[in-house]
Amino acid sequence: VTARLISVDWGTTSLRCYLVGRGGAILDRRTSDRGILAVGQDGFEATLLNEIRHWRSSAPELPVVMSGMIGSRQGWHEAAYVPCPAGIQDITANLHSIAVQGCGPIWIVPGVDTRSKTGRPDVMRGEETQIFGALTGLGCTDALFVLPGTHAKWATVVDGRIVGFSTYMTGEVFSALKDHTILGRLMATPPSFDASAFERGVTNSEGTQPGDLLNLVFSARTLPLSGQLGDDEVESYLSGLLIGAEIRAAHTRGRRTADTVHVLGGAALTARYIDACKILGISAKPIDGECVVLGHVAIADAIELPDSS
Amino acid sequence: VTARLISVDWGTTSLRCYLVGRGGAILDRRTSDRGILAVGQDGFEATLLNEIRHWRSSAPELPVVMSGMIGSRQGWHEAAYVPCPAGIQDITANLHSIAVQGCGPIWIVPGVDTRSKTGRPDVMRGEETQIFGALTGLGCTDALFVLPGTHAKWATVVDGRIVGFSTYMTGEVFSALKDHTILGRLMATPPSFDASAFERGVTNSEGTQPGDLLNLVFSARTLPLSGQLGDDEVESYLSGLLIGAEIRAAHTRGRRTADTVHVLGGAALTARYIDACKILGISAKPIDGECVVLGHVAIADAIELPDSS
Repeated sequence: VTARLISVDWGTTSLRCYLVGRGGAILDRRTSDRGILAVGQDGFEATLLNEIRHWRSSAPELPVVMSGMIGSRQGWHEAAYVPCPAGIQDITANLHSIAVQGCGPIWIVPGVDTRSKTGRPDVMRGEETQIFGALTGLGCTDALFVLPGTHAKWATVVDGRIVGFSTYMTGEVFSALKDHTILGRLMATPPSFDASAFERGVTNSEGTQPGDLLNLVFSARTLPLSGQLGDDEVESYLSGLLIGAEIRAAHTRGRRTADTVHVLGGAALTARYIDACKILGISAKPIDGECVVLGHVAIADAIELPDSS
Repeated sequence: VTARLISVDWGTTSLRCYLVGRGGAILDRRTSDRGILAVGQDGFEATLLNEIRHWRSSAPELPVVMSGMIGSRQGWHEAAYVPCPAGIQDITANLHSIAVQGCGPIWIVPGVDTRSKTGRPDVMRGEETQIFGALTGLGCTDALFVLPGTHAKWATVVDGRIVGFSTYMTGEVFSALKDHTILGRLMATPPSFDASAFERGVTNSEGTQPGDLLNLVFSARTLPLSGQLGDDEVESYLSGLLIGAEIRAAHTRGRRTADTVHVLGGAALTARYIDACKILGISAKPIDGECVVLGHVAIADAIELPDSS
């Protein structure tokens, strides 16, 4: 298979490069810990060229498509956010191009921003590419996505455009509560996942106000203190509380456009979200495949990058 | 004025002793950092006797009333929780008595526990005494209280009994978010309180689901990132978001029994809660005075402790 482009997912703490063939087949891949925080402002070009040198030796003009925090203010070059509604044409019209001597075109995909109804801004950078890749894989133009993680993103796509999204700090709040509040003190170490404690957390995550969460999380202390939850169940219970609360809130907001939630993330976390949706009676499906790469291929298709073969 | 009792507020990190006269006048006081965590299981008696030795030298039989974490499993002796509804007679009927050679009676006040409508347990230890003291000061038998802090307590009192309460981990969640998530990175140091940023946070704390809080707090990142909030405003804004969310949720739950929220805490935090209530159109009043001492006097009155004069 002939190589068509190099796909680069460059985040805060990791750098993933893929050699991609026609039709999106991954021909080769390289992963390193050279995220943008580990690479100085002057080191991006050298780091990239070093990572992809073997692939370029036979095809120096291969185009490179990059997304993630590499396009942030702390990255190689800031690619300004594209406002919602943002379709793939809006993305390609705002790619940031970098010229490097002896290289084919290098593009940075911009992030996307939006505003809540009450005017609070929200941003994503990297997730837009995964979403466009997932749409390609699904072969549809309307969908509701969740990308679980440190900062989980819920995004609604209508007619192929991201019309709105919301960030939930679920992963980071979970870590902060676990490692830096009294809630962690009753947790068994090493942690192990307990499905029934997780389910109990999801079930208990109900309420009518944002502030209820400040009260709900205290049950991760009072239940074990009163002998109603084992030390080895506390962590899974707290995870269920937070993920359940996130899904209830985000799905209420997003379900106008879709009945099924498409879950796009790592295997373990995706499984938890699928479980939690099931407990809450919400239809959910995992998205398989390397969505970043599919997204870069879709972007390359949209701008009709020169065929380097 | 003749001394009537020794009032002891013995918490996790501090020990406060008061020499109290007839009518509740504070004749003398001593504060130390000998909280229960700093005192080993075998050191409670020696620590107490050392703190109050000057007072006892002239009146060795003075009764001692103690409340706070000294009555927890990690304290001197566990005084089992009294269930709601809990009035002062329920408390005095469950005091734990400790006999120490050559001393007057030493009593530990029990904590109070309750259950949410969905069966989640909640507990307080020490706050019950402050609430009974505040009731004495107010001269009423029905009131809604908030005791702000690391674990804020909202308690409803009807006919002189605590009929229910809820804990909100607002203070501890605020610290964890500030010091251990990305939200702290955009905060100016040293922090300074900004009243208008606090108000903006309170105003923005609205939502319809517990999980909305996981999204709302992200605005403490996106607003400064997009230039809509200064670095020196982020901390006050986040404080307003969390305190506002807590008050909206707790007041919704508590207002069936009272229109006015009585705020019982340290001066700075009490002022923030009064401000936040005002912004939300909720009537709120600070409680002045040493409520712990007033509570111990009320308990002593209820059990008719022997007059040591």
